[in-house]
Amino acid sequence: MTITVFGFSTSHYSLMIYYVLKELGLSYEVVQPSNHEEIKAPKYLATKHPFGKIPSLDDDEFHIYETRAIARYLINKYQGTKTSTVLIPSDVQKAALVEQFISVETSYYFEPLFKMLKPIAMKIHKGIEPDLKIVNEGREEFEKTLDVYEKLLEGKDYLTGEFSLADLLHVPLTSYGFSAGEGDLWNKRPNVSRWWKNISERESWKNIFTEYNLAQYATK
Amino acid sequence: MTITVFGFSTSHYSLMIYYVLKELGLSYEVVQPSNHEEIKAPKYLATKHPFGKIPSLDDDEFHIYETRAIARYLINKYQGTKTSTVLIPSDVQKAALVEQFISVETSYYFEPLFKMLKPIAMKIHKGIEPDLKIVNEGREEFEKTLDVYEKLLEGKDYLTGEFSLADLLHVPLTSYGFSAGEGDLWNKRPNVSRWWKNISERESWKNIFTEYNLAQYATK
Repeated sequence: MTITVFGFSTSHYSLMIYYVLKELGLSYEVVQPSNHEEIKAPKYLATKHPFGKIPSLDDDEFHIYETRAIARYLINKYQGTKTSTVLIPSDVQKAALVEQFISVETSYYFEPLFKMLKPIAMKIHKGIEPDLKIVNEGREEFEKTLDVYEKLLEGKDYLTGEFSLADLLHVPLTSYGFSAGEGDLWNKRPNVSRWWKNISERESWKNIFTEYNLAQYATK
Repeated sequence: MTITVFGFSTSHYSLMIYYVLKELGLSYEVVQPSNHEEIKAPKYLATKHPFGKIPSLDDDEFHIYETRAIARYLINKYQGTKTSTVLIPSDVQKAALVEQFISVETSYYFEPLFKMLKPIAMKIHKGIEPDLKIVNEGREEFEKTLDVYEKLLEGKDYLTGEFSLADLLHVPLTSYGFSAGEGDLWNKRPNVSRWWKNISERESWKNIFTEYNLAQYATK
């Protein structure tokens, strides 16, 4: 069995896949495109991802792209074979709530957070001055999402009550939020703050953080 | 068993759920909010959808929100009990490809198409003149997506080869695209056009089209 992930190692999408792989106890190798042009070139479009995105994954001869689809595939195939971590439960209602919160993450959490962080990341990585209007719009929208999360997480350690793929998918971009010096957004909300500790202090994520040297992206 | 869908009957999201329900052979009732204010009010947020969106669903005492999560739930619970339609196959690799194309629909198809159609819909429903710059930006982006679809659908009747939830989720908004007079976008691409016929000429969709009188939204 050889699992290969094609992607930029520090992309939050790739990190989601690594986190799933480690929770499931699977070994994998990473193949990084040499640059952003490569993933828009005909060969990559024809063999890896027709829309020119990362990551994609090969599992022996089976090829699949799109992060959340890759995650579900790995879980359906390998969950329970190497570790006891349950990322999607077999119970139909419990699985439905995991899917509900995966969709919540995609629709209301990821978008405003990314809108806020992208200009900050461009400043950190490329020295381009951020458009503060966009950063602030994103932050304002994201604060509203976190207010809802604060209610949803009342009396709960995880979104569905138990750790799942829905929680996991929040971690990489949130981690970059902390690196960007925005940690107070999470810390000032007690339920959100407790949840963040629960989902980010797992061994697999700490290993990823060290292995890919994510500390280097923190604002100085 | 009572399945209740909360949502506006002509919302493309609600229509996705009705289409799934009919393919699975399930009966359901629809409860429509009286207006857009209702779904932002505290009671709705606390009991139906914490982010103030539609649709949400009750199945006896079980409550769930977010369209694609609702669809997966209904399939996991009821597929094969009333009809032989398979929307998500049990085979792990086949299911993975369905998930891949669900994600493709969300990421590359829905967004530019919605961007293009929203101002046109505002013109049809409320007489507000559309911002043609946005419409054209959306159309340009969407044409690129359809060019990729044209390649993906080469020699295939459906995205994964067989009809699935991934195809189904494309139907309601695409149908509104035709109603808005934009059908040529699909018709001029032979593979896309064949696919559109396959996924829109199913009995369940034709029933929905009649039952909810979707013809009324066509441009005159």
